[in-house]
Amino acid sequence: MTMNILDALPNIKASTHPEDLACYGFDACGIEEKPSAVVWPETAEQVIQIMKYANENGVPAVPRGAGTGMTGGAVPLKDSIVLSMERMNRLLELDKNNLTVLVEPGIINGRLQRDVEGHGLFYPPDPASMNFCTIGGNVAENAGGPRALKYGVTRDYVMGIEAVLPNGDLINVGVKTHKGVVGYDLARLLVGSEGTLAVATKIRLRLLPLPQDVLTLLCLFTDLEASGKAVSMIISSRVVPRTLEFMDREAIRAVEKFQPLGLSEDIQALLLIEIDGHPEAIKKETEKVADICMKLGADVNMAEDGAARDRLWECRRRVSPALYSLSPRKISEDIVVPRDSIPQMLARLKILSERSGIKIVNFGHAGDGNIHVNLMVDQTDQEENRKAEALVREIFDATLRLGGTISGEHGVGITKAPYLGMEVKPAELALMKGIKNLFDPKNILNPGKIFQ
Amino acid sequence: MTMNILDALPNIKASTHPEDLACYGFDACGIEEKPSAVVWPETAEQVIQIMKYANENGVPAVPRGAGTGMTGGAVPLKDSIVLSMERMNRLLELDKNNLTVLVEPGIINGRLQRDVEGHGLFYPPDPASMNFCTIGGNVAENAGGPRALKYGVTRDYVMGIEAVLPNGDLINVGVKTHKGVVGYDLARLLVGSEGTLAVATKIRLRLLPLPQDVLTLLCLFTDLEASGKAVSMIISSRVVPRTLEFMDREAIRAVEKFQPLGLSEDIQALLLIEIDGHPEAIKKETEKVADICMKLGADVNMAEDGAARDRLWECRRRVSPALYSLSPRKISEDIVVPRDSIPQMLARLKILSERSGIKIVNFGHAGDGNIHVNLMVDQTDQEENRKAEALVREIFDATLRLGGTISGEHGVGITKAPYLGMEVKPAELALMKGIKNLFDPKNILNPGKIFQ
Repeated sequence: MTMNILDALPNIKASTHPEDLACYGFDACGIEEKPSAVVWPETAEQVIQIMKYANENGVPAVPRGAGTGMTGGAVPLKDSIVLSMERMNRLLELDKNNLTVLVEPGIINGRLQRDVEGHGLFYPPDPASMNFCTIGGNVAENAGGPRALKYGVTRDYVMGIEAVLPNGDLINVGVKTHKGVVGYDLARLLVGSEGTLAVATKIRLRLLPLPQDVLTLLCLFTDLEASGKAVSMIISSRVVPRTLEFMDREAIRAVEKFQPLGLSEDIQALLLIEIDGHPEAIKKETEKVADICMKLGADVNMAEDGAARDRLWECRRRVSPALYSLSPRKISEDIVVPRDSIPQMLARLKILSERSGIKIVNFGHAGDGNIHVNLMVDQTDQEENRKAEALVREIFDATLRLGGTISGEHGVGITKAPYLGMEVKPAELALMKGIKNLFDPKNILNPGKIFQ
Repeated sequence: MTMNILDALPNIKASTHPEDLACYGFDACGIEEKPSAVVWPETAEQVIQIMKYANENGVPAVPRGAGTGMTGGAVPLKDSIVLSMERMNRLLELDKNNLTVLVEPGIINGRLQRDVEGHGLFYPPDPASMNFCTIGGNVAENAGGPRALKYGVTRDYVMGIEAVLPNGDLINVGVKTHKGVVGYDLARLLVGSEGTLAVATKIRLRLLPLPQDVLTLLCLFTDLEASGKAVSMIISSRVVPRTLEFMDREAIRAVEKFQPLGLSEDIQALLLIEIDGHPEAIKKETEKVADICMKLGADVNMAEDGAARDRLWECRRRVSPALYSLSPRKISEDIVVPRDSIPQMLARLKILSERSGIKIVNFGHAGDGNIHVNLMVDQTDQEENRKAEALVREIFDATLRLGGTISGEHGVGITKAPYLGMEVKPAELALMKGIKNLFDPKNILNPGKIFQ
């Protein structure tokens, strides 16, 4: 008979208390499951012990950061062990000369950002959940954020990873240096693998010098098409803003309903643009961008200091809570299309919304072509959910026809697994499953994710 | 009996002429072998036919760009088929709105750069061989170059790859968009895999807006240590130059011997620094950097236009031909150490050189910590070669002790394969070999590379 993990590994903090099992049984996608135990390892050695126990006893193990994922990557299977990495949350080494930082996976993204900024350094990836989510989770999901337009995503900052394989072997992949081409790129293979290949225990990240200054523009458009044109014109003007965020009319109105900011009903779209860098350069670049938007009829507001910037960000920051409060069981997708296809995609979404009778609210990262498409339904209502699922399939189909992808930031997890085959064809899928089998022949590390 | 490829695939241009076999039998590492045939596919369909033929008949196939690789990645095995990709060299689609370009693998890097620059766009990776080497080869080796300091390496620009697997299956990996996190990152797994996993037939690359302006500084130091200090101080001054190149005294003197530029014998090191971006910003940043170098005693020369820039680059550009002319059978390594360990590494190299009696000449990318270490020996002299191999092992050992890697740009290929185990440990190596076996169970695609 299998020995309970509490008895088998008495040195490791663990619990089977129903409250703990409930607290660690869900993530931001809304799916809930009951694990059989939660463990809180504090060292790589303990992670090795846990994985050996799981592998030898055939018990599924599910690594977990802060559970802010949107597709169920951290939702445990029934009777699995949750490996909560929250106690492994130290910043181990800030190397200012080489612009790198070594962290444990449980460190909160926002805390890391503040810590390095205190030294004039910069960790760009800024997922919306940055004040809660962990770097380990960010690495597992290859998290993005508004600044990805200029600075890229988590993958672009991961230099090396120490990780535990499902069989308990400790591996070190990647390098400590800016370059390195020795053997296959296992570090980037782990990034975005949704906790299915290995459990990270240390992560080395690349840092940048903190940009000297930031200017923020809020541009309000009464014409949706003009906002799309503005995005294209900004990009082709040789300015690369660090963020180029978009909200449609429905998103703005949702915020006005939730916590009014006094934005006019006429506004069809807004762009929130940030330009960072050398003060002399960004002043000129911001003028250029403001000019483009004004010529397209936008009302342009500029912020030069932190307080003014916060005011301009208010509408964008409130959109998620607003939509959540309006529709707590909504479906959130995060499609990406080539950025010049955004207007076409939005037009298609409008038709699909009207035809299905399901309200769709859009916001997101216009510069990347990454649109957060929110289906305002009650997922717990079976009839609504069935209709919504058909609509999701149509949305993904339209996305792929435009050369896009069904997920820019959220990953596949559980919720997108049924649609994986729409994007990934059999030959590629066979390679991915082969890699999973190579790392985890017993399929005990976060099973049931990505692949159905 | 196996049918000859010329007879088996009469529609594909191929040759078994001894001159062709000789021309395609080597790369820049100096190793020569005789393939059994050279084929020049013109379409993905033809690559599929060739790989099917190779796989079914158990004939090794070796994909080849321009053969400029430094570690033997494109050197054929005896009796293998060389797949020269030079006829698949088209720029298929330049998407100015989305800042991407779709190319065939045989396109020359320098040609691609010029083509996109004509549209105000920028493809940063600039390996020294950029006027000859192909994008397919760059992807296979994850090529870097001087601009990697600010802009990263080939990996950072590959968005998607169409490729043929060893069994002839065509795969499409990666995305057309700025973001995408659906399934494992097979695109980055192919980058740097040295032509051992698949043969790329189309590559989609990310482009940037062309920087508005560039300023170049040549800083001559009579004190080696001061040049190291300058590198650290520049990086911590929050300026990120696009290049920060280094040459030691021996490298400068080699150039002076080869084609004199009149640089004084007192000079112990030079730094060649380029700063690009908005004109207003780079002027200030260049002043800051010049000031750092002058305070450390350097003689600083600045170039604002193309002709002056070319003059400052002359010494750096001549170093490879100069070293080659001095010692055509030299050994070129490309170690990387954390950038603040460069002075320590150079000191160690000096001791190792003196102790072994082998002259070592160093130049490279100081900003990255990537040093091109040249052992001025005659590899064809058995006694010298034996001594040099022992020295290489000592150099790699010192590199790894400093937290570095044995290759920043060149890859493992044939020449570094004996040293792979110094850096990659058994658990990681087993995963890499497992991946090779998954993609290529018959081991017919570029066998004998990376893994001995």
